[in-house]
Amino acid sequence: MLPATLLAKKRDGQTLSDAEIHFLIDGFCSGKVADYQMAALAMAICINGMQPAEISALTGAMVRSGDKLPRCSDRPRVDKHSTGGLGDKVSLILAPLLATCDVDVPMISGRGLGLTGGTLDKLESIQGFRTQLSMEESTKILRKTGVFIIGAGPEIAPADQRLYALRDVTGTVESIALITASILSKKLAARLDALVMDVKVGAGGFMKTLDQARQLAQSLIRVGAQSDLPITAILSDMNQPLGAAIGNAIEVNEAVDVLQGIGPPEVRELTIQLAANALVACHDDLSRDDAVAKLTKHLDSGIAMERFEQMVIAQGGRPDFPRPIGSELMIECPVDGWVEKIDCELLGQIVIELGGGRQQKQDRIDPSVGLQVHCRVGQRVRRGTPILSLHCDKRQHDEYRGPLEKAVIISDQSVRSVPLIIEQLS
Amino acid sequence: MLPATLLAKKRDGQTLSDAEIHFLIDGFCSGKVADYQMAALAMAICINGMQPAEISALTGAMVRSGDKLPRCSDRPRVDKHSTGGLGDKVSLILAPLLATCDVDVPMISGRGLGLTGGTLDKLESIQGFRTQLSMEESTKILRKTGVFIIGAGPEIAPADQRLYALRDVTGTVESIALITASILSKKLAARLDALVMDVKVGAGGFMKTLDQARQLAQSLIRVGAQSDLPITAILSDMNQPLGAAIGNAIEVNEAVDVLQGIGPPEVRELTIQLAANALVACHDDLSRDDAVAKLTKHLDSGIAMERFEQMVIAQGGRPDFPRPIGSELMIECPVDGWVEKIDCELLGQIVIELGGGRQQKQDRIDPSVGLQVHCRVGQRVRRGTPILSLHCDKRQHDEYRGPLEKAVIISDQSVRSVPLIIEQLS
Repeated sequence: MLPATLLAKKRDGQTLSDAEIHFLIDGFCSGKVADYQMAALAMAICINGMQPAEISALTGAMVRSGDKLPRCSDRPRVDKHSTGGLGDKVSLILAPLLATCDVDVPMISGRGLGLTGGTLDKLESIQGFRTQLSMEESTKILRKTGVFIIGAGPEIAPADQRLYALRDVTGTVESIALITASILSKKLAARLDALVMDVKVGAGGFMKTLDQARQLAQSLIRVGAQSDLPITAILSDMNQPLGAAIGNAIEVNEAVDVLQGIGPPEVRELTIQLAANALVACHDDLSRDDAVAKLTKHLDSGIAMERFEQMVIAQGGRPDFPRPIGSELMIECPVDGWVEKIDCELLGQIVIELGGGRQQKQDRIDPSVGLQVHCRVGQRVRRGTPILSLHCDKRQHDEYRGPLEKAVIISDQSVRSVPLIIEQLS
Repeated sequence: MLPATLLAKKRDGQTLSDAEIHFLIDGFCSGKVADYQMAALAMAICINGMQPAEISALTGAMVRSGDKLPRCSDRPRVDKHSTGGLGDKVSLILAPLLATCDVDVPMISGRGLGLTGGTLDKLESIQGFRTQLSMEESTKILRKTGVFIIGAGPEIAPADQRLYALRDVTGTVESIALITASILSKKLAARLDALVMDVKVGAGGFMKTLDQARQLAQSLIRVGAQSDLPITAILSDMNQPLGAAIGNAIEVNEAVDVLQGIGPPEVRELTIQLAANALVACHDDLSRDDAVAKLTKHLDSGIAMERFEQMVIAQGGRPDFPRPIGSELMIECPVDGWVEKIDCELLGQIVIELGGGRQQKQDRIDPSVGLQVHCRVGQRVRRGTPILSLHCDKRQHDEYRGPLEKAVIISDQSVRSVPLIIEQLS
């Protein structure tokens, strides 16, 4: 087999066999297939797509490039994965919450990408929190507390990690096939018994249309089924941020609110729905209503918050240490009316520019930068109502007042609110 | 501008601007655009194509990546380029022949690729012949003899040379846009006044169908026009080898035959037609009939042969030194009938396997290996007529007898002969 011949096959829209895909991924790991060959393959896959069997083979080859997380308890193992969206702090709440329901949650998470923040970046705004743990250490924490949230170590699907870095700089991120294989290779390496997906739809996420989001969800479910991993997916709206907070420290604070039974209702609602799917998937005898009731109770009683603190401490963090939040600039609504649109791209861009996200891979994140959105689409607002708060160095307030005043569009006619959960697939 | 953003544009089938294309090629030369990014771009171009304006910009950027050949006489400068085919030794004859008609022929040629031999490889079967000359040296030879045939030095379109090496190993050779830019960047760097193209159509060349060949010819003509380089193209049949000889030394010998007024009539005919197009393109007052008459005379009188010898000597070669030809194995026709098909892929593959071409880039060529095809499609043959001769080490004769006996298909019904020149475009 010659790499160039296989690349030409995919270029011409043909289907690669299992053996051919394994040859390419194994070669990529051993150095026989060069970065430029893998980048060209990624581009051909982006444009011409892959058949389900090809995506399964690619996923399998990436799992096989590394180790699997050892089993360490009799509890079922579940996880949630989101395609990423503005203000999406669900993982911080859901992981410890699920762990209070007799399941293990070995969550392997990522950094911020594009406009969307990363769970690891958010957690690192907690003093001392470590996201890079050895496999022994993370297994020990999982056995003890039933949950960890870490970055993928070099032993978890290293082929995916190398391919991901290439895709990021070659315009080949947006591919249903490659996204599916990237997500599932890490989840299969974690030996999950069930996975719940949150596929975001809209301007603040990667999938801009419902059709794309549905395709991705179906691809994930299909490839999961071929690998004996049951997956359910919620398609949720991302045309406005999830909850009020966008940023790092500020999102941890909002997550802590939800873990204490308060916080924005839409964050709580989505967390419970996703977590209920996970519980039902691995407990045959549990009804959905009972799962929701149990999860609600664990948020309201403080059990979930306790587990969050245990996890933070196990990973070296100090949950009680105050997290720095930048100085506040309040933006008020200029007229009476209804919120028509919240410009996710603009808000995300401002947070990145101020250092709350990365413009380049090596950039350091300033956890104190953030935004709060005090309104939701469809809401009635009056002149003078606070609609946004920017948190950053006071000296930058003036520069951002103008852009922020354009970020929320107010209509003089009533606007329909949009449902958060669009549909569920399984 | 970010490379990944531009790659994503091409991935989505959008058009890149002149500035964007120059940014990518300049960055490729300076190291700011990595090999893996350029390979991904090449794949996107292969699949989604390029608009004529994009191909022009790409060609221009590649010319600008290097130097141009200095002007060194008042004579018009012309060249011929072939897309490559089995047994195509036209350049060896045409270049010195044209130089006898008061034009300069600075021919920058290539190595064998795939099944097709390379002009430089063929010339190197002449004792002492040097294909890598400095720009000063080649200019001096051009001034004196009106002709050279060399490989592109590092100063001629280096971006093309680097991109070409990448395309070869990433399955991105077959692209009308990339082939056009690759050919024309070298021709424009040579400051030609006219170019004639020989686009081969059929199993023995790169363009397998008439439609592909026509598209390539039209692309070349269009981009040439935008750069003030008039181009005419002949589409010629490549479903059987051109002439009898396939190999290196053996093709030089056949070219020398044609230069002396003998040799296979189809080689002579195609050479004269292409050369006449070149002469007419740069001499307003010359009719096509006069051009053909002049070229015919220069072949028959030995003037062209004299010029060939001058060129060979100027480039360090010894034209009179005997060229080694492998031991002959004659294959006879097994039955009476008509030649229906000559299997170009099989013949090309056998020559490569025996060392007459390269399986890998670094392979050394054995110039003594070759094949002679003693028949043409449509020809009446009798049992016992010699149809093929293999030239190689005697010990390999037995191994190849079987395959060679399958290379020429004989029909028991009469077969129509195929015209060599299919159509002309300008």
